[in-house]
Amino acid sequence: MQLTEKHRPTLDGALEAIRTRAYWSPHPEHPKAYGETGAEDGKAAFDALLNRRFDLDQPGTDDWTGAEVSPYGVELGIQYPHPDLDVLLPAMRAGMADWRAAGPETRALVCVEILARIGARTHEFAHAVMHTSGQAFMMAFQAGGPHAQDRGLEAVAYAYQEQTRTPAGSAAWSKPQGKRDPLELTKTFTPAGRGIALLIGCNTFPTWNGYPGLFASLATGNPVLVKPHPRAVLPLAMTVKVAREVLAEAGFDPNLVALAAERPGEGIAKTLAVRPEIKIIDYTGSSSFGDWLEANARQAQVYTEKAGVNTVVIDSTDNYKGMLANLSFSLSLYSGQMCTTPQNLLIPRDGITTDAGHKTFDDVVGDLAGAVSGLLGDDARANALLGALVNPDVKARLEAASGLGEVALPTREVTNPEFPDAVVRTPVIVKLDGAKPDAESVYLSECFGPVSFAVAVDSTADAVELLRRTVRDKGAMTVGAYTTSPEVERAVEDVCLDESAQLSLNLTGGVYVNQTAAFSDFHGSGGNPAANAALCDGAFVSNRFRVVEVRRQA
Amino acid sequence: MQLTEKHRPTLDGALEAIRTRAYWSPHPEHPKAYGETGAEDGKAAFDALLNRRFDLDQPGTDDWTGAEVSPYGVELGIQYPHPDLDVLLPAMRAGMADWRAAGPETRALVCVEILARIGARTHEFAHAVMHTSGQAFMMAFQAGGPHAQDRGLEAVAYAYQEQTRTPAGSAAWSKPQGKRDPLELTKTFTPAGRGIALLIGCNTFPTWNGYPGLFASLATGNPVLVKPHPRAVLPLAMTVKVAREVLAEAGFDPNLVALAAERPGEGIAKTLAVRPEIKIIDYTGSSSFGDWLEANARQAQVYTEKAGVNTVVIDSTDNYKGMLANLSFSLSLYSGQMCTTPQNLLIPRDGITTDAGHKTFDDVVGDLAGAVSGLLGDDARANALLGALVNPDVKARLEAASGLGEVALPTREVTNPEFPDAVVRTPVIVKLDGAKPDAESVYLSECFGPVSFAVAVDSTADAVELLRRTVRDKGAMTVGAYTTSPEVERAVEDVCLDESAQLSLNLTGGVYVNQTAAFSDFHGSGGNPAANAALCDGAFVSNRFRVVEVRRQA
Repeated sequence: MQLTEKHRPTLDGALEAIRTRAYWSPHPEHPKAYGETGAEDGKAAFDALLNRRFDLDQPGTDDWTGAEVSPYGVELGIQYPHPDLDVLLPAMRAGMADWRAAGPETRALVCVEILARIGARTHEFAHAVMHTSGQAFMMAFQAGGPHAQDRGLEAVAYAYQEQTRTPAGSAAWSKPQGKRDPLELTKTFTPAGRGIALLIGCNTFPTWNGYPGLFASLATGNPVLVKPHPRAVLPLAMTVKVAREVLAEAGFDPNLVALAAERPGEGIAKTLAVRPEIKIIDYTGSSSFGDWLEANARQAQVYTEKAGVNTVVIDSTDNYKGMLANLSFSLSLYSGQMCTTPQNLLIPRDGITTDAGHKTFDDVVGDLAGAVSGLLGDDARANALLGALVNPDVKARLEAASGLGEVALPTREVTNPEFPDAVVRTPVIVKLDGAKPDAESVYLSECFGPVSFAVAVDSTADAVELLRRTVRDKGAMTVGAYTTSPEVERAVEDVCLDESAQLSLNLTGGVYVNQTAAFSDFHGSGGNPAANAALCDGAFVSNRFRVVEVRRQA
Repeated sequence: MQLTEKHRPTLDGALEAIRTRAYWSPHPEHPKAYGETGAEDGKAAFDALLNRRFDLDQPGTDDWTGAEVSPYGVELGIQYPHPDLDVLLPAMRAGMADWRAAGPETRALVCVEILARIGARTHEFAHAVMHTSGQAFMMAFQAGGPHAQDRGLEAVAYAYQEQTRTPAGSAAWSKPQGKRDPLELTKTFTPAGRGIALLIGCNTFPTWNGYPGLFASLATGNPVLVKPHPRAVLPLAMTVKVAREVLAEAGFDPNLVALAAERPGEGIAKTLAVRPEIKIIDYTGSSSFGDWLEANARQAQVYTEKAGVNTVVIDSTDNYKGMLANLSFSLSLYSGQMCTTPQNLLIPRDGITTDAGHKTFDDVVGDLAGAVSGLLGDDARANALLGALVNPDVKARLEAASGLGEVALPTREVTNPEFPDAVVRTPVIVKLDGAKPDAESVYLSECFGPVSFAVAVDSTADAVELLRRTVRDKGAMTVGAYTTSPEVERAVEDVCLDESAQLSLNLTGGVYVNQTAAFSDFHGSGGNPAANAALCDGAFVSNRFRVVEVRRQA
């Protein structure tokens, strides 16, 4: 088969990378890697999508819907098919037996082909991600393009590996019986998908957070119904279109992947989540709806990434400048609108030891504020780093933040010359006293967006204890720590091991606590309240299919 | 380490077997393989346990309890420690960090040592299983001994493999940055258990159904609290004792494994299941409590084996005698008290084609009844095959069965000369007309015990459709089929693939539909209402731990 020649090396590369956890990616990060006219072609292709119907030619379309407005101020004007579920869902199941019969390798290679075609259109996807999430172009390009494709491919590799743990074809089984003839059977083992998988997309990272579940489910033999966030339909609609094209070309039913766009306020995710046809759900978003899914979608395997309170423990450092630079970048990137952005910076009230001498609590907070201001002092650079606020809720939260405590770094409005209606704001840092009981309700609540709290704690030991309580009760996608003390390092590590949180230690260079690399870093742990699954591990794929055994008298 | 030398080859053998699915076992099935005095030593050791306290020296014992009466009519008279959970549970958590730090290989080898010590005492365990489950001695010996140990070892192998998918020690990560220095990190990946695992044992197969969950949880770094069925405490109490001894000798906290025996009617499983310390639950038993656990023990990963309605489709055969012999054995073994015993035999009302000529529905049912009668005609052989009825509920169900339809094979009381109080009964076969609506409520309900229904269906196509409905709505641990038609074979296979059921085709020799072999056969599929997990696959182990990553600036 042609796909084997074309994509088996990519699959093998991914399988090797998830084993060694070394750096690897087949998806170039640099915009110039996509051909001389890649940038303008991508922009033109994106423009051509605007202000018209996005047809997917899927069965059971009873209406057209769509009201996306770019966080950069532009109405997209795109109408998507609205599904009649009683027609669409049965149609999606129709191709399942053929998809199952194709086997794990063919399914994996078809998935890699879908990713390759998406990859070839990375510029076009970058604009789609930018104008739905509010990410700045370069971030939309990288996180929405190659990094998302990496996470999709990683899921395909895990799915393939998991499904091939039992032999393909038939296995002979012969049990000795002493002097009598042995008992003999032939056995076949078939990975079989569970049923329709529902992907519930998010506003901020439609592709990056969507691809793992989509490809894990598809590669394990399940049809996938994609329910995008109403503000971020386009990147996933484009994905569905590519998937349908590739499936059809490979001789499979294109209805194995379909889109479920919803009317404003329809709440179609809630309806879909409890339909008996839906056997798998992947969800990224608020804890309240994630918790609701876990409690109510009992007929399905539910994988959630919800919200947590990310903490950085600042005990000491031998690279004060590096620490400030690293942290200021993490707080600024995409206006802190990442599920991995640090929220609480725990700093001993007596200050910390650094290579630049002792620094008081106020020194550290002031220097960090200065580092953020420096990083974002230039409007062009600020725009390139911050992107736009994704929605009015984030803006409201940012505006309310100054009332929560002493403002160490006020927010600043940044003008975007290209998109004058974009809402661009620098992050705010608020000082809180960890010992004051009324402060706790502030810093122990998730405050999604460009708001962080510099929390004065009595000691590093206090910080470690607060870290434990935060992860256990509120969850965390990331934990960071800065320390030169092996004891403190060990204490923070123990908390993370006990409470199941992913830890970044003493980052002072070009890797940031809020970024993870597919094939090597786990995103979330699946073991604390922030998420019940990690991207990507065996548990993320192993229950999306079941192995059916047929044994026959040999 | 000594354990490596001793047990690494066993672990490697198990790892190889779960990959190839070929026959393999390190645990001898023959009673004579256990030394010349093995049998009498085992019996003596068992006798020495009776009519006394079974001390485990575990913390938080606030009472002694126990009321086991052997299905063979003997009171065991053993008292077990009753736990004060507020003392015992914290004590169980205390050793968790050391157990985590030991790493996957050491944990696996300690588990293998526990299994090896249990294996050396197989004769003693056989008596304990016999006098709690009612299995006949030989079955208690094999299913409760080597086969249970196999399933435990299989779980250890899966757990080890799953935890070693990320590198032990630290992994280097280096991302090229064009002309600039690469980004470099060192990363460590630590499998970390989730918390205390609760094993809820069953009456019929305390070790066979208990060991997979127990060893999967322990090998993945979790303390395990064993809550046995009140009628089958001894085999699991003995297991707990061995585990505690081995853990202590290997330098770990023995409280990593503990027993929770309950007072009559206490319902301690329900209390334990929702305790926040309990993060994993393994359960074998009724669907009603299994469903309750899945719905209510939301803080835990819940693995259930519940009940289903097992079906055999009888379309045609080229070995009529072999089919009858095979089926009659399956219906008789352990008085049909296996979760895998066939209940509904679907037979076309116009009869079937066989190598012995056309057989009418009545022929087939009559010949099967004759085969069962022949198999069990000799009381000694009947006792050796049937064992005793495990509890009064099964007896009541058997007695009511004759009122459900036309009795094709009546039950017969068998005397057990060694144990005159044992309740030994041969199985009953009841004819039902599948086309009659009132029959459906009979054959579509699980009737656990020595009762099967010969259901007359309009055609094989009808049988296949009824099979589909049965598996989808009621679940099935096993499906069997006899056919010489490739089309029928394909149709039955498709149902099993669609509805996720394990299929045995045309068994006419010494392998039976109700038996599975560890390392090769999956027990249950985890994909239909009879069970949400299969023994044993990646999904059975992958969510019992989480991988915690620590990354550091290189």
